[in-house]
Amino acid sequence: MKEHTEGVNINWLDQVKWDDKGLVAVVAQDFKSGRILMVAWANRQALSLSQQEGRAIYWSRSRQKLWRKGEESGNVQLLHHIQLDCDGDAVCYQVEQIGDVACHTGRQSCFYRQLTASDSGPQWLICEDVLKDPAQMYQTNAKE
Amino acid sequence: MKEHTEGVNINWLDQVKWDDKGLVAVVAQDFKSGRILMVAWANRQALSLSQQEGRAIYWSRSRQKLWRKGEESGNVQLLHHIQLDCDGDAVCYQVEQIGDVACHTGRQSCFYRQLTASDSGPQWLICEDVLKDPAQMYQTNAKE
Repeated sequence: MKEHTEGVNINWLDQVKWDDKGLVAVVAQDFKSGRILMVAWANRQALSLSQQEGRAIYWSRSRQKLWRKGEESGNVQLLHHIQLDCDGDAVCYQVEQIGDVACHTGRQSCFYRQLTASDSGPQWLICEDVLKDPAQMYQTNAKE
Repeated sequence: MKEHTEGVNINWLDQVKWDDKGLVAVVAQDFKSGRILMVAWANRQALSLSQQEGRAIYWSRSRQKLWRKGEESGNVQLLHHIQLDCDGDAVCYQVEQIGDVACHTGRQSCFYRQLTASDSGPQWLICEDVLKDPAQMYQTNAKE
């Protein structure tokens, strides 16, 4: 629905500031725990379909296609809220993560590496266990 | 410090997958409440300085310069942890938000608009109060 009534009721998708590739950054957050699960991208269709279908849908930049999160792994993200930031160039999906695993590595969150001091300077250390074997999550070898 | 000892001890900044503009997406999260405060960008220098100075530093795409968060508003973000996602193209700053306001509008979070159903279709509704008057936050008219 697109109505331009003195600018008041413009289409919600027009209020998103799409980048030069037609994308917007999306942060998925577990709506209960607050854990940041992943950062991905959405184009206009992905965001619109997310709203319509009530699940997190992204645009896969590597595969250049719509990515219904969980379509291969089963780790669907049920959408509770969609939020937009002040300048419109970032979106937050508040989700319920089915299977408790968002990352293709089998971890709850994609942000499982933390910068940690060491004798040889800062290093990224893995600080989260694998909950599911990725080989079991995916029927094919395709990585989400 | 940069050591290439059989790939084991490479510089942590080299493990970030910088985009074609030399930037990486950064999500700032309140490390206590879990609230997502903002999404911004960092270049190599901004990320390196964030680690060194223990505060959130970004690259302002609009102003094309380093942006020490809070340098104008006073709303500094003290850095507790830096996290990297699985494919290295997104970073999370776990921060303590000084002044409890991250957004230039005077709100706690930049994600203060939530998609809400209405008779005329989904609309972004403001669902967070202004905590501080932006005019008082900034000595100049410059917007962070």
